[in-house]
Parts: sequence; structure tokens; C-alpha cells
Amino acid sequence: MSKTVLTGDRPTGHLHLGHYIGSLKNRVALQDEYNCFIMIADVQALSDNFDNPEKVRANVVEVCKDYLAVGINPEKCTIFIQSLIPELFELTVYYLNLVSVSRLERNPTVKAELQQKSFSESVTAGFLTYPVSQAADITAFKAQLVPVGEDQLPVIEVSNEIVRRFNRVYKTDILLEAEAMLGNVGRLVGIDGKAKASKSLNNAIFMSDPSDVLKQKVYSMYTDPNHVKMSDPGMVEGNVVFAYLDAFYEDKEELVSLKAQYRKGGLGDTTLKSLLNGTLQNLLDPIREKRESISGATVLDILANGSKKARKIAQQTLLEVREAIGLIDIAQ
Amino acid sequence: MSKTVLTGDRPTGHLHLGHYIGSLKNRVALQDEYNCFIMIADVQALSDNFDNPEKVRANVVEVCKDYLAVGINPEKCTIFIQSLIPELFELTVYYLNLVSVSRLERNPTVKAELQQKSFSESVTAGFLTYPVSQAADITAFKAQLVPVGEDQLPVIEVSNEIVRRFNRVYKTDILLEAEAMLGNVGRLVGIDGKAKASKSLNNAIFMSDPSDVLKQKVYSMYTDPNHVKMSDPGMVEGNVVFAYLDAFYEDKEELVSLKAQYRKGGLGDTTLKSLLNGTLQNLLDPIREKRESISGATVLDILANGSKKARKIAQQTLLEVREAIGLIDIAQ
Repeated sequence: MSKTVLTGDRPTGHLHLGHYIGSLKNRVALQDEYNCFIMIADVQALSDNFDNPEKVRANVVEVCKDYLAVGINPEKCTIFIQSLIPELFELTVYYLNLVSVSRLERNPTVKAELQQKSFSESVTAGFLTYPVSQAADITAFKAQLVPVGEDQLPVIEVSNEIVRRFNRVYKTDILLEAEAMLGNVGRLVGIDGKAKASKSLNNAIFMSDPSDVLKQKVYSMYTDPNHVKMSDPGMVEGNVVFAYLDAFYEDKEELVSLKAQYRKGGLGDTTLKSLLNGTLQNLLDPIREKRESISGATVLDILANGSKKARKIAQQTLLEVREAIGLIDIAQ
Repeated sequence: MSKTVLTGDRPTGHLHLGHYIGSLKNRVALQDEYNCFIMIADVQALSDNFDNPEKVRANVVEVCKDYLAVGINPEKCTIFIQSLIPELFELTVYYLNLVSVSRLERNPTVKAELQQKSFSESVTAGFLTYPVSQAADITAFKAQLVPVGEDQLPVIEVSNEIVRRFNRVYKTDILLEAEAMLGNVGRLVGIDGKAKASKSLNNAIFMSDPSDVLKQKVYSMYTDPNHVKMSDPGMVEGNVVFAYLDAFYEDKEELVSLKAQYRKGGLGDTTLKSLLNGTLQNLLDPIREKRESISGATVLDILANGSKKARKIAQQTLLEVREAIGLIDIAQ
């Protein structure tokens, strides 16, 4: 039987090219080979958007549209909504007993937040314990592989520690450890060149951006401020246009010679931007078209079916977990 | 409509006279006046007994037997098992976002544990967050009154803070703040006089103790080590026999004169112990008899019915909570 993969996104905005290159493209490839579960993590999104639930709710459907538009196939993958799987919450509560507060505080992401935030506006318990909630997600579907970025490795570690402790304490082997699948593409830089592309920084190109918005974003990209005249030598490093060409331009050989030419001088930003614009329009044209053809009703249908299927599996796991713990079972 | 009361016990052992005088007796009185929910908190018990689930499981039935034996009436009260109400876990996860880690660390019970325990065997996340889990219990049944000991007041405070924050953030009034009902009887001392009566210290008199065990425990009670001969003056303070007579002997006037006589000298420990033994046998005789008449099957039936009834109410609350948060709702 093929291995199970769990992956997903927090529905806090439309998905952008950073998601595409960092994970979505990979998922389309994975779905033929693995038993894929894709979770729209609305509850996790609430942990730092608890005061903006409308945003989270609205983006559940948008994120699913992005999935379908890029070619994720609901016949091959189980796409589901986290908040429709109540078994995840029960698992979370049981797992909270299997990890110490100090262990959770050593999580680098939490550590950074704890150091940054002042006492009064301190981190929430939900944020401290999100690795426990993720352990519930991973184990509920008995995922063996979890595609993550480098920064999420410590969370997988916590999950595996919980698995080992559970199996040891309750003398069982029902829970499986998961392996991180590290992507081979780094984070995509924002169009301003300042940071990772993200919705909140307003520096990302969304897969749902109309053609003219895409073009406008490409032409506003940060290049080399010292590359004033076309004949000036230019910097390739830190140049956003090259970063995007590296990620999306297929002809790598030509890219090498374009970089050489840019470094020497004689290659204008406008030429490069036009090349990138064409590349991205070609990539996004069919995605946009597919996206527009999908009705909200279809999306809801897919999510309902996927959540139903995912829930059955989580229910089975919870049953095994309750039995392993030895909780009382009374037919109600 | 009468107010709703939530109360309960962790099923980690049979209930003893400390429970009787501190809460059970009061519950029997409350059940005629209030809408009472009595929770057998097996999940909470697991938070520090996660490696001994058999004990927790076995005591679910024993604790319920103790309830019925003392006169708690399942026709008047809803007796239920925490782990059979999965809605409590979902509420817990939502509430984790509404309280900060530092707030939970200020909980005196947690604070004491954090100071006591070494880094490596640090407190678990489940222990840190148990006030959040209790907020879920309290709010799920919209309890307005929660009988607690002085030491549990900070937990009610955390729960009310979560309620206020939830109602403010989600612009609603569905969650109710709860009021602590402080009992007027202090903690019952153990028969060794060293600490509070508790199962783990093996210094408690259980309501299920057979007559001979009860007698043996009374006669082994700590009195005044300097009261050697009957004619010696004796200390009333710290004398366990007097502590129990204070709690259980009805004729308070006679008790005053007994204390005076003991202080002066001329009243022997054996006389006092015999008086206490008679008092406690009279109290426990009918309780024991009732306890023995209740079959395990009856208890399971009562727990199944109570849990079913409790769950319906928790489901309704969760529905309101999900709607207030604005989580997506798809018929599956």
C-alpha cells in the first residue's frame, strides 16, 4: 500500500506563487504516488486570527479553489476542513498530557514569540500548544510523510516524541511516527525583495491575480537600484526578477547566459520583466481559467465529501486511541 | 427556572468522608433546588494519571456508586462521564486561544508545581491548561454556580476571563460567567493528623469501608501524644478525633462539654473513639447498605443516560459557539 501524506494550508488568504512553487506543485506530483490528505487548517488559522474568523471562514473555499485550479484532484486526494473533524480535538487533549510545558517552550517558533512579546500581550496557550494539535492532525490519519519547510522540523519532532511516548505508556504501536519531506525549493521572495512573499506584507503574486494585476506586479519588482542604464552592469543576487526566473523559467541554460549578460551590462530590466511576465502569464492562464470554471457549490461538495472520508479515518484512530488508553466505553 | 450547578470528582479512588462532608452532603441538599450536573472527570484525572488509566477507568463506576449511596438521585441530577462528551474537547481547543501562557502560569496550583518540579520532569501541557479544560466543562452546561474549595477559586477566575473574552471578541452573550459556591466546611484532616485525608496518603476513611475497617481506623486515629493517662489534661487542637466529631457529631452542645472535660483531664481517648466510631457507623451503615444493593449494570445504565442527556446540552452549546466564532458549517 502506498504511504500516507498529510499536508495542508491555513486559510488566511488566497494562495500565491510561493505556495505554488513551495508545495502545491509538489502535491500535484505526489497525488499519483501517495495516499494524500490535504487539510484546510481553519482551527489552526484561528490560533492567531481568533479575532478575525470571517477571514478564515471566507478563505476555506478560496484555498480549495486554488487547490483544484493547480490540478489537485479530489478523486486522488482527500481534501478536508480541520474544524469538521472533531476527533482531532479529543486527540489533542489526550496528547497535552504527554508533553511538558518546557518542551513546548523550546520550540524555536514559540521561543522567538515568547522573547518578542511583552508580558501583557503574551503568547496564547493555543499558540504554545499548536505542535500538540499538529500531532493530532498527523496521527489521526496515520500520516507517514509530512511535507514541511525547514522551520517546521521541530514541530514534527514534537509530534514524534508524543507518538513514542503514547506507544510506550500505553504499550501499543497504533500511532505512527512521521517523516518530514523537505521541499527542495527555498522560500520565494516577495516582489519588494524585502522578505518572503506573504499576503500580510502585500508583496505576493496570487494565483488568482488577474492578468493585468500580475503584469503590474512583475513590472514593479525590485531589481538592482544601481542598474540605471541598460549598459550598466547589474546584480543578479537579491534581484527579484532573477529569483522568480530561477523558480519558474524552464530553460535553465538560457537563464545562465541571461545572468552573465546582466552582470556584464547590456540587458535591460524591462526585457527581463517582459520575459518573466510571459512566463508567469503562461503558467497562470490555465490555472485562472480553471479557477473561474469552479463554482462555490462544487467546492462545498468536494469539501463535504473529503471531510466525511477524513472523519471516518480519524474516528477509527480515536477509537484505537481510547481503547489503548483504556477509557470507559458505554454505548449511549 | 432554577440555576444550573456543575460539580464533580476525579475518579482516582473511592470517595471518603472528606468528600462527604466537603461536597457530597451539600449536593444532596442542592439537588432539590438546582439543576445539577455532576461530572465524573476521567479525562481530567488522566492529566496526572495518564500512566495509570486502569485506576481511572475502574473508579468511574465506584465513584458513581458512592454518589448513589449517599443519596444523590439520578432523577434529579445529571450524572455523566467527561470522556463521553467530546464537545468538551472542541471547546477546550477554541478557548486555548483566549488565554495567555503567562496567565495560566500565574495559577497558584500550577505555579507551585512549576517551582517544585525540576526542568526535566517538568509539568505537562495538560496540567498547565487544565483551567481551560474546566472552562469548557463549566460553559458547556452553562453552569452559573460551581461548588469549589478555596484553592480552586483562581480556576473559576480563569474560566470567567475566558467567557468575557469570548463574548467580547465574538460579540455575543451565549457564554455565562459562573459563581464559585464556597463550602462552609474546611478540609477534613487525615486519620494520621498529618495532612488532608486522601487516598494517596492512605489516611482516609472511605464511605465503602466495611464496619471493622472503619472501627480500626477510628481507633488508630492520632490524638494528643502527651495525653498518656486518662487523668492527664489533653489537647483538643490537632486532635483528629475531635476534628471528626466537629464534622460529624450532631450534638454540638455536648461536644463543647466533652472538649472542656478533655482539656481538664479525666476523659480517655478510648471513650472518645468509641463515641466517634458509633457516630460514623450510624452515618455509614445505611450508605454501605445502599452501596451494596446497587449493581454495576444499574450504574452503567445511569451513567449512559446521564451522559446522553449531558451531551445534548453540550452539543447545543458547541453549535452556538461555532456559530459565534463563524466556523464553516457544511452538512456532511
